[in-house]
Amino acid sequence: METREISQAVISRLPRYLRYLGELKDEGVERISSQELSSRMKVTASQIRQDLNNFGGFGQQGYGYKVEFLYDEIGKILGMDKTHNLIIIGAGNLGHALFNYMNFERRGFIFKGIFDVNPDVIGRSIKDVEVLSLDCLEEFITENDIDIAVLTIPKTAALNVAERLSKTRIKGIWNFAHIDLNVPSHIQVENVHLSDSLMKLSYNINRGEE
Amino acid sequence: METREISQAVISRLPRYLRYLGELKDEGVERISSQELSSRMKVTASQIRQDLNNFGGFGQQGYGYKVEFLYDEIGKILGMDKTHNLIIIGAGNLGHALFNYMNFERRGFIFKGIFDVNPDVIGRSIKDVEVLSLDCLEEFITENDIDIAVLTIPKTAALNVAERLSKTRIKGIWNFAHIDLNVPSHIQVENVHLSDSLMKLSYNINRGEE
Repeated sequence: METREISQAVISRLPRYLRYLGELKDEGVERISSQELSSRMKVTASQIRQDLNNFGGFGQQGYGYKVEFLYDEIGKILGMDKTHNLIIIGAGNLGHALFNYMNFERRGFIFKGIFDVNPDVIGRSIKDVEVLSLDCLEEFITENDIDIAVLTIPKTAALNVAERLSKTRIKGIWNFAHIDLNVPSHIQVENVHLSDSLMKLSYNINRGEE
Repeated sequence: METREISQAVISRLPRYLRYLGELKDEGVERISSQELSSRMKVTASQIRQDLNNFGGFGQQGYGYKVEFLYDEIGKILGMDKTHNLIIIGAGNLGHALFNYMNFERRGFIFKGIFDVNPDVIGRSIKDVEVLSLDCLEEFITENDIDIAVLTIPKTAALNVAERLSKTRIKGIWNFAHIDLNVPSHIQVENVHLSDSLMKLSYNINRGEE
């Protein structure tokens, strides 16, 4: 497979391809043309060809894409053939929601632990996993080969926790705190800024009214 | 203000500008050059000028941007000077988390109701608001001038609910269900596909290891 640099815009679209290809696979579809995929996904066929060409010849002229093969290949590109160990920092409602969401496990994302600073919450169990004190953070990460930390804590706490995480073996932070984190470049950060998303919806609603 | 079409990419970046400008405002900063803003936000000064030029002359050569003015203007563009009435459909952990997140209210997003189909959940209270049966959906939307519906339900249920919402006065859907909704063009949809975001993080982690 080619390993040239792929833009983050393309990467952002890959999970959606994976979702649609998974549905096609479930429906028993073996191959699909870029035109058919285009009408399902409501993106142009040329965009699909351009995106998928980044990964080298999956499509064949006049034949289309092999669904299962393409599904597997995109899965591999996204690291879905590997297992990742996660912890959640912040055992509030959002932390609970993510911890309970089983589909992540099917994708190889294994939640190993959940942390909080609130003494009323520490020691309680979620799905048979005990909420731990943030004091144990570094030790737990080392002992359990944790790759990804999920931050579901207020922004004031997030900066300090991110700094602590920077000194561990953590490779990625999935950040729900409403602040941009400042971490060394070997740590990847993926932000989910929910307010930003809601504001974008607000813009589009109000624009529609003009 | 100019009303020409602004790309969704620019719109996506506006909430982040608003966040940084809000912080500057809180720090008592009155004006800022695109260079200073650039080094804070870690985007190029030329990107900042390009983005903000979309909305007409906020910046003045050699003077910089007036922080409070720019904050207010971007806020207005994003509809933050208006109030939006929301309902949440799905009273699970994620629905709870969003309902409890007070910062949305500060931005004018008022959660008016929360719905579920589970008889064990219907009738319970969250922050003094009773969880209602989905049977009351259409009536509640009309009577309470609801603009936005938040979907925190499984994808199998989301398609049906989206179809019901299409026949109401709803203007926007904030969709957390892991499926693309098919709604009439007068309804704006903003998707938060959490799995997609986690997969993107997985890609970036694994790429870093190659």
